[in-house]
Amino acid sequence: ANIVLLPGDGIGVEVVAETRATLDAVAAQFGHSFSYSEHLIGGCAIDATGTALTQETLDACRAADAVLLGAVGGPKWDNPSASVRPEQGLLALRQGLGLYANLRPIRLFPELIQASPLKAERLADVDILVVRELTGGLYFGKPRLREEVNGRRRAVDTLEYTDEEIQRVVELAFRLAASRRRLVTSVDKANVLESSRLWRTVATEVAARHPEIRIEHQLVDSCAMRLITSAAAFDVIVTENMFGDILTDEAAVLAGSLGLCPSASLGDGTRGVYEPIHGSAPDIAGKGLANPIGTILSAAMLLRHSLRLDKEAAVLERAVAQAIAGGARTADLGGKLSTQGMGEAVRAKLA
Amino acid sequence: ANIVLLPGDGIGVEVVAETRATLDAVAAQFGHSFSYSEHLIGGCAIDATGTALTQETLDACRAADAVLLGAVGGPKWDNPSASVRPEQGLLALRQGLGLYANLRPIRLFPELIQASPLKAERLADVDILVVRELTGGLYFGKPRLREEVNGRRRAVDTLEYTDEEIQRVVELAFRLAASRRRLVTSVDKANVLESSRLWRTVATEVAARHPEIRIEHQLVDSCAMRLITSAAAFDVIVTENMFGDILTDEAAVLAGSLGLCPSASLGDGTRGVYEPIHGSAPDIAGKGLANPIGTILSAAMLLRHSLRLDKEAAVLERAVAQAIAGGARTADLGGKLSTQGMGEAVRAKLA
Ligand SMILES: CC(C)[C@H](C(=O)O)[C@@H](O)C(=O)O
Ligand SMILES: CC(C)[C@H](C(=O)O)[C@@H](O)C(=O)O
Repeated sequence: ANIVLLPGDGIGVEVVAETRATLDAVAAQFGHSFSYSEHLIGGCAIDATGTALTQETLDACRAADAVLLGAVGGPKWDNPSASVRPEQGLLALRQGLGLYANLRPIRLFPELIQASPLKAERLADVDILVVRELTGGLYFGKPRLREEVNGRRRAVDTLEYTDEEIQRVVELAFRLAASRRRLVTSVDKANVLESSRLWRTVATEVAARHPEIRIEHQLVDSCAMRLITSAAAFDVIVTENMFGDILTDEAAVLAGSLGLCPSASLGDGTRGVYEPIHGSAPDIAGKGLANPIGTILSAAMLLRHSLRLDKEAAVLERAVAQAIAGGARTADLGGKLSTQGMGEAVRAKLA
Repeated sequence: ANIVLLPGDGIGVEVVAETRATLDAVAAQFGHSFSYSEHLIGGCAIDATGTALTQETLDACRAADAVLLGAVGGPKWDNPSASVRPEQGLLALRQGLGLYANLRPIRLFPELIQASPLKAERLADVDILVVRELTGGLYFGKPRLREEVNGRRRAVDTLEYTDEEIQRVVELAFRLAASRRRLVTSVDKANVLESSRLWRTVATEVAARHPEIRIEHQLVDSCAMRLITSAAAFDVIVTENMFGDILTDEAAVLAGSLGLCPSASLGDGTRGVYEPIHGSAPDIAGKGLANPIGTILSAAMLLRHSLRLDKEAAVLERAVAQAIAGGARTADLGGKLSTQGMGEAVRAKLA
């Protein structure tokens, strides 16, 4: 299998390196061989090429079976009036590959429940899969502009959805719910937004084709509250791009650390982009302190979704669970292991 | 003083009635007389007049010193293709009165800390004031449309801000921070949205005029996480309309119950609209189960901001704190008191 690595910026470099080593260990164990090609994305790509994602890199991703990504961005490129930004690379990649669904599972390791800011009894039975729409909404709608007329500045972003964009991502959420607890919570702001009313209408149509699965509509403000007060009540959550961005970072709190949370961005085929949900964490970059688990679990999703190596994925996930059960902890979890130390702890549990 | 009451729908009716009785008790104690006029808003206004806010009601609010509002909406008016909606009344009121800033304080009662889903140690020293922009952004931007062309449906909302809209609300946040802990966290999504980049630019300009106050810029996704993991680190949060809607419902979790949280919507003068941040709660409406504290504390904000009765406001807030310290609990707090019972418990502590 042909895997493109896009380490990106900051701790992205460290966690991707550690995950590659872990994928190699899985490959060795099962007699596979993965070939990697590494490319630039984000701030490092801007520095080297002037753009956050070159056509060449996008083509390499298109030709690959899967893409493993670290993180993009950092203070160096944070000038609000800059014309190129690291994040544009990520957005161009998602759109260029047609990855309209971002899967963000929130699963808890029993040994880490005490690391959570929430009381343990609130975390019993939490197992949530957020399906975030990834190529529409405010992130891509046109017009998007900033202008100055007679000394008065204004800026505009556009939240646009078509029925087709909503339909395909909600359909995927229903298919995923079928092998879970059969509840889909569709999150919108239908009491205010036109786009949310279309979202709710189309979600209701999709639900009618899946009578065996329950659908529940929830307003985004109320969902932000219930994610903390009643997390165990959720199974699959499906929502538009911006709401999904906010709610998944919030939901990561349930897991105890953002550093533990993986994601998969998928489209119609099997190709996908896999990345931790954390960012480039400039404050700890280059120090070997980052937790690689979010990226390693993203690689497990890669094995399962893009390479159809279900058994290998399960073995890798079990190794992670065993390493954590065995006490392996990076700094974000109050421990002392380095990024590499954590990777080694996982690899020691393989086989 | 001349106060307009807009009970609205669902539990709005119950909590406003209880709060009126409590305001009367404050008036009696201090020798004031408040005169009230009651009007319709939301679903009940649609039923009676065909519109969620009549011109007459808006005029009455304009002529009043302050407005006390309950909540709007309910399943009866929830049809996604309806052309009039209860929420339109609320939005028209906010815009019609020019109430561009919605203040939502998150304060904790020590006796309720154990009711929170968060661990007690995470709640020490939490005292947050969210200032939400209320008359701009996605809620009001044009175009907003839903259309069908050749059988394909699409919908559009527009997120628009001018520098002036940002400036005035951020300026208010800084003024409020001056008598607090002198930290303003400005929340945006400047790595993706043009409107957020303008927001950040203008917030930075306002900050330059207040060198004695610290400003911190935070991305909305990361803020949604830090509100739970590091709540005590926040002082004043200022953000745009939609982000503020989501983050304040989330932050209400810190207080232990949405039913405890008040709000004030303010513009340039002293007139304001005061309302609890909870909704109309159709599931418990008409049963006398609703917690009136959010509305009673909103009335305390009314006394302070619109009537300049600082002492009266403080006495009312102290009575609420003492009632809760004395064990008064409605069902949302695991207790048995009715709406009226809770109101009486507060009034018993006045004087
Ligand atoms: C970096 C940023 C553009 C990105 C997003 O908002 O999608 C990130 O927050 C994420 O969630 O993947
Ligand atoms: C009812 C709704 C329009 C309103 C809003 O979104 O502003 C409510 O959620 C609030 O927070 O006051």
